[in-house]
Amino acid sequence: MYVRDTIAAISTPVGEGGIGIVRISGPAALQIARSIFNAKSNGGLKSHRFSYGEVVQPGTGDLVDEAMAVYMKAPNSYTREDVVEIQCHGGTLVVSRILALVISQGSRPAEPGEFTKRAFLNGRIDLVQAEAVMDVISSRTDASLALAQHQREGLLSQRISTVKEGIVYALAYVEALIDFPEDDVNVAVETDVLGKVAPALAELDALIAGFDEGRVLRDGVSVVIAGKPNVGKSSLLNTLLKEKRAIVTSVPGTTRDLIEEVVNINGLPVKLLDTAGIRESEDQVEQEGVRLSLDRIPKADLVLFVIDGSSAFGDEDAAILEAIGSKSCIVVRNKSDLPLAVDLPSGCSAPVVAISTHTGDGVPQLRDAITNAFMHGHAIDGREFVALSKARHRDALLKARESLQSFVANLESGVNMELLPVDLRDALDAVGEVTGETTADDVLDRIFSSFCIGK
Amino acid sequence: MYVRDTIAAISTPVGEGGIGIVRISGPAALQIARSIFNAKSNGGLKSHRFSYGEVVQPGTGDLVDEAMAVYMKAPNSYTREDVVEIQCHGGTLVVSRILALVISQGSRPAEPGEFTKRAFLNGRIDLVQAEAVMDVISSRTDASLALAQHQREGLLSQRISTVKEGIVYALAYVEALIDFPEDDVNVAVETDVLGKVAPALAELDALIAGFDEGRVLRDGVSVVIAGKPNVGKSSLLNTLLKEKRAIVTSVPGTTRDLIEEVVNINGLPVKLLDTAGIRESEDQVEQEGVRLSLDRIPKADLVLFVIDGSSAFGDEDAAILEAIGSKSCIVVRNKSDLPLAVDLPSGCSAPVVAISTHTGDGVPQLRDAITNAFMHGHAIDGREFVALSKARHRDALLKARESLQSFVANLESGVNMELLPVDLRDALDAVGEVTGETTADDVLDRIFSSFCIGK
Repeated sequence: MYVRDTIAAISTPVGEGGIGIVRISGPAALQIARSIFNAKSNGGLKSHRFSYGEVVQPGTGDLVDEAMAVYMKAPNSYTREDVVEIQCHGGTLVVSRILALVISQGSRPAEPGEFTKRAFLNGRIDLVQAEAVMDVISSRTDASLALAQHQREGLLSQRISTVKEGIVYALAYVEALIDFPEDDVNVAVETDVLGKVAPALAELDALIAGFDEGRVLRDGVSVVIAGKPNVGKSSLLNTLLKEKRAIVTSVPGTTRDLIEEVVNINGLPVKLLDTAGIRESEDQVEQEGVRLSLDRIPKADLVLFVIDGSSAFGDEDAAILEAIGSKSCIVVRNKSDLPLAVDLPSGCSAPVVAISTHTGDGVPQLRDAITNAFMHGHAIDGREFVALSKARHRDALLKARESLQSFVANLESGVNMELLPVDLRDALDAVGEVTGETTADDVLDRIFSSFCIGK
Repeated sequence: MYVRDTIAAISTPVGEGGIGIVRISGPAALQIARSIFNAKSNGGLKSHRFSYGEVVQPGTGDLVDEAMAVYMKAPNSYTREDVVEIQCHGGTLVVSRILALVISQGSRPAEPGEFTKRAFLNGRIDLVQAEAVMDVISSRTDASLALAQHQREGLLSQRISTVKEGIVYALAYVEALIDFPEDDVNVAVETDVLGKVAPALAELDALIAGFDEGRVLRDGVSVVIAGKPNVGKSSLLNTLLKEKRAIVTSVPGTTRDLIEEVVNINGLPVKLLDTAGIRESEDQVEQEGVRLSLDRIPKADLVLFVIDGSSAFGDEDAAILEAIGSKSCIVVRNKSDLPLAVDLPSGCSAPVVAISTHTGDGVPQLRDAITNAFMHGHAIDGREFVALSKARHRDALLKARESLQSFVANLESGVNMELLPVDLRDALDAVGEVTGETTADDVLDRIFSSFCIGK
């Protein structure tokens, strides 16, 4: 339920910075802002004017900070409610104090994503667009960002509305059929309806088929580098890491020795497990590295199986290949600058890329092979790419497709005609779950609770 | 040297948040903003209008993000130059991409503090106010924040200008004396000059005397809790930590077992070393805790020496007291809810506060004793408190006072009259180092380089 109260939160990231922003949204936003902000220019808070002034403690008049403030009158705001944003110095304490003042004057702390939720509930954006806002914020490569922006702009929603239109058209037809049951199923009309449903089904197929690519662009993939000692795993890792702008984030792993690096490979966010701590010394430590690689194989989306091209394929190589099993894999034949001496077992059908971490030969081909393993030839620059990227969306569209296929089968066979409207309404509901028209409140709550505070 | 080029930086803290801001300042700010921002409302970028639009890649027109932008025409801006701020979604990548676009269109990355430096160089604020901006951002208690805000507002600068006026008045007199040496030193004039210099000297005395309090409010103090095992050190630590809003920050220490907690004690930021990891188990670990406490005593500003009031003062207590030596110390006589059995050695002159961590008795008195140890009775709520807080300022004012005292001595004795203008100019220069009028470029560089980027 949407209670139209006034909410407030710190909208800038946590930490010290030049500028911090406290955002207020709701019917009392302007009144609350006026009670704590003394505009010193620009004739006070007027819609979309940027005013200089001071935030003061009501009652005492004590200065809290100098600030800029902007009022955005409904509906011309992020939430379509009255919004005021107060920009102050970006210290943790200053921003928190201003938020506390705003709360004390009659707003309540916003829940995570609550501003965006209100933008959705007030009809400014649909649920697909609202969910994409958080993807925009957490994107780690340009391609992921482009995909998220397309969704936020409504390009995915447009494709889904093609689906919806087909279903609605068919529903109007079958409802007329129920209202006037004396009319026979007219073949011309049936053909017309099927002609409208077909593109909807085709679009559903295409959207569902594109999910894998969308998902990897959004969530990234995890890649493990496996291989026996001294085949050049560390050199390969360093080669992939040290490309210009390669490293997107470094986050501490669960153990002291593992650091997860997210690198940008042709626009794909790729999580690599760095074994930096492990590489420090020799022998038993390398063995430990092999064991860790083997442990990680089952969890990875792709294995880079590194072999030494200049020496024979040995028992250790065979053991690793066995551990890889049917897992998605690229054989990386390193040391291509040395004479070729390795023979891959005939049973190994994984693509092979020859590289030299010494000269850099083959590395671009390896990068392409990695992205092709996931993108299946789809352009990855993201500019034209409008795709599903969330399992929730895919699952709902799978339901919609199933219902629509059932509708087509029944219409064509002429049996179970009473189920025609049921299937169409199911399909419509399923599509509505994606765009938010029929999404249950608890699902909405779950979606927005994963947002950051202040968005 | 101040090159009037156009600079840009991310002004919000690093990280994910609802809103990120890229700030541009300089003659090309508006032109650069227009080349990447398509306003969709409000008739484009006009001064102090908050416009909705899209940031696009020039050339391709590819969407980078939807954004709000505001242009602040010189001199009505933070830097007194033309400034544009672009507000986008707060993701690390989005904000970085917009900054990269802005740079590519003809600005350069701003150095830390460079916006504030320009505000200073353009005369909007003096150096004391500029330096206070960073204190506002990094303040950790309301009292520290109030002190920083007073400096940023110019209240400290006002007190310093009192000093300056006295010196300037005296300088006018002695210069007249040099121009017309035939005039004898007129006693009436001399009295008049000394009458003007006296309040300047008094203000210098007062400012210098207030430095210790200002410094501890700004930088905080470090307090170590020392005592033998089982006297209640951990309970005391927890009591001080668990007060409402007590914990300001927790930062990882240099070793795994030490966590430095900054707690707010009556407005004073107090660094306490938490030995959380050490308290987990018994015996040898407690001994380790004692050893660590002893190690930390020399580095602390104050020692809380905890003793068990219900048992005799023992050898271990005596050893710790000896380690404390002449260090500032408060004896915390714990277990005041049990019968008093301890006798302090007669040589111990430190103040004693009786507490019970069990009942909470005496804890407010202990908090007051801690703040009194540093604030010497000065009110700490910070509302009225205008003080020096930086060693650089104190050192410059010490120089100014020395020169001014020399001037007074020479004028009164009538000897070394040729040094009168020298001393006064030295004093004036020293005062000007604080406010920025005579501060060397390398000092300015050092000051602003400690700022955060984007401020």
